[in-house]
Amino acid sequence: MKIKLVAQRKQKPDFSKLGFGKYFTDHMLVWEYDADKGGWQEQCIMPYEDFALDPACCSLHYGQGIFEGLKAYKTADGKVTTFRPRDNFERMNKSATRLCMANFDVDEALSGLDELIKIEQEWIPTAEGTSLYIRPFMFGTEPFLGVHPSKRFLFTIILSPVGSYYAHGLEPTKLIVEDKYTRASIGGTGEAKCMGNYAASLLAGEEAKKKGYDQVLWLDGEEKKYVTEVGSMNMAFVIDGKVVTPMLDGSILHGITRDSAIKVLRAHGIEVEERKISIEELVEASAAGRLQEAFGTGTAAVISPVGTITYKGKDIVINDGKMGKITEWLYDRITGIQRGKYADDFGWVHGIN
Amino acid sequence: MKIKLVAQRKQKPDFSKLGFGKYFTDHMLVWEYDADKGGWQEQCIMPYEDFALDPACCSLHYGQGIFEGLKAYKTADGKVTTFRPRDNFERMNKSATRLCMANFDVDEALSGLDELIKIEQEWIPTAEGTSLYIRPFMFGTEPFLGVHPSKRFLFTIILSPVGSYYAHGLEPTKLIVEDKYTRASIGGTGEAKCMGNYAASLLAGEEAKKKGYDQVLWLDGEEKKYVTEVGSMNMAFVIDGKVVTPMLDGSILHGITRDSAIKVLRAHGIEVEERKISIEELVEASAAGRLQEAFGTGTAAVISPVGTITYKGKDIVINDGKMGKITEWLYDRITGIQRGKYADDFGWVHGIN
Repeated sequence: MKIKLVAQRKQKPDFSKLGFGKYFTDHMLVWEYDADKGGWQEQCIMPYEDFALDPACCSLHYGQGIFEGLKAYKTADGKVTTFRPRDNFERMNKSATRLCMANFDVDEALSGLDELIKIEQEWIPTAEGTSLYIRPFMFGTEPFLGVHPSKRFLFTIILSPVGSYYAHGLEPTKLIVEDKYTRASIGGTGEAKCMGNYAASLLAGEEAKKKGYDQVLWLDGEEKKYVTEVGSMNMAFVIDGKVVTPMLDGSILHGITRDSAIKVLRAHGIEVEERKISIEELVEASAAGRLQEAFGTGTAAVISPVGTITYKGKDIVINDGKMGKITEWLYDRITGIQRGKYADDFGWVHGIN
Repeated sequence: MKIKLVAQRKQKPDFSKLGFGKYFTDHMLVWEYDADKGGWQEQCIMPYEDFALDPACCSLHYGQGIFEGLKAYKTADGKVTTFRPRDNFERMNKSATRLCMANFDVDEALSGLDELIKIEQEWIPTAEGTSLYIRPFMFGTEPFLGVHPSKRFLFTIILSPVGSYYAHGLEPTKLIVEDKYTRASIGGTGEAKCMGNYAASLLAGEEAKKKGYDQVLWLDGEEKKYVTEVGSMNMAFVIDGKVVTPMLDGSILHGITRDSAIKVLRAHGIEVEERKISIEELVEASAAGRLQEAFGTGTAAVISPVGTITYKGKDIVINDGKMGKITEWLYDRITGIQRGKYADDFGWVHGIN
């Protein structure tokens, strides 16, 4: 690995007012793939600086790009850790396959990330709810017009010290069920973490925001009948004391926080069902007083309580709009494992220093 | 408009071996939008050179980008023309709206393009089947992580002298009906010319190529029952002497060549139906000897005959795999109008010099 450090580090932002994804650290990792040069080249940690991209750079036209999101923490005893990084890189390779992009060696990606975080560890905020967000991404760089895969890719990791994803922190979010626009359908790219999925979701999100909602709850693309995910989060519901979450049907992201939540819940004797959940079931469960909690799971927001879900103009108010007990317990467990407050029974915490 | 010309022009490629989208001219047009600076800035024609983009440039993560494609020609009497450029820019604004991007003034875009083509007119190849391909595109440039629209965009036009889109020219193409992957569904972005649609189509295209096919014929995303488009082309069929083409249902691109074809056919007394066409209808029409021709329409390939469509392992061979009469006539009419061989009865040809 080549390492080129900055001569002078940037002034750090006020760690108590970070927001999300606004500040970037001094260095980044870049790793080029060129099919004509035998594939992956040497990794390079270098100053965070502009890319020079040909205007015909294919991903600026045809969207061949994928990304991941994970976080690094500094524990009370000064340990620097990441959470399930191998799972992120393995999922990234699956996204790459779906988008006709080169797969990479996961161990090499992991060691590159560790090295980068070591160099940038003073950028890890430590206050409750803050962390160093890690953004690996890869996009096609070959300059051409015409629809075909690139032969060159740039794998990059950038780092951003972040606060909570939602401005209102752990305050329960308000969701609106989207019944006009579609996020993904079976056979599409809904399962891949690719750039196009997010662009496709913007308009629904903006229309929801104008109506006072935080996010959109997507339905399946075929029948607009089953709840799928929130775009930035997978969804789960507590019905009759049991956690139910939409099954991974091919159109839903295989959330790593979703998986962590399921495993932690089951290990503590809470039943979890992965299955199809129709929006009508939620309406009926709510009317019968059986819908007790709702929450989202995702790297950015971790566990995020949902207070209201609006469907066809009617509000499903959950737990009087307050965070539920299982949600609160789960938030504490998952963030506690991430931050070293609880034992890491699942082997998820990856130590760096 | 600011104009900065190159000191020395590039060596031009061999115009008899252009291929598609491989060579770019000396200059490009860039036009910045910044919501914080009052919107659209002054257009600039400048040397074709790399963009400097922040690694957190939002469209490299969230795919907020759209494009268009049209062509410039030099007629036998030395006139430089483009074909229906206003329609392209109007469609681009519709794509922009769908992707939460800024709309632009179409007249200003048109005059900017004219100026760029005037400067680059020596790059327009004149041989049959060649042209100067024009690629307007726009993408979000604001550097941030988090799913929301950009406040800054870069509208760019680059130019590429091209030969035929398919290596085999007017030889009929072989299509395979895709029944595993989905291109788009109602409520998605199928109607917008956005980067994500094309990335989503790559894997199906590569799998088709490995089986010896040129392109994939997509079915609707809901039922996988109705033919929609080919990704780079809209589709039309001749059944019992009548042209039928999938109706614009919200998931299909509003092709400008599709529209030109429909208008030219109707003006010449050939009936055209826009409606749902199931793949089973094509299978049955073929078996009954009623499916006489099939062709694609698109800017890159103009009118492209289809010789075989394979569905569930069975070949639908059309007109013995040869170009049909209506297809050939239409190709001649449309390219003839574009190149000044036929009168421009529809007011489609835009003169530049």
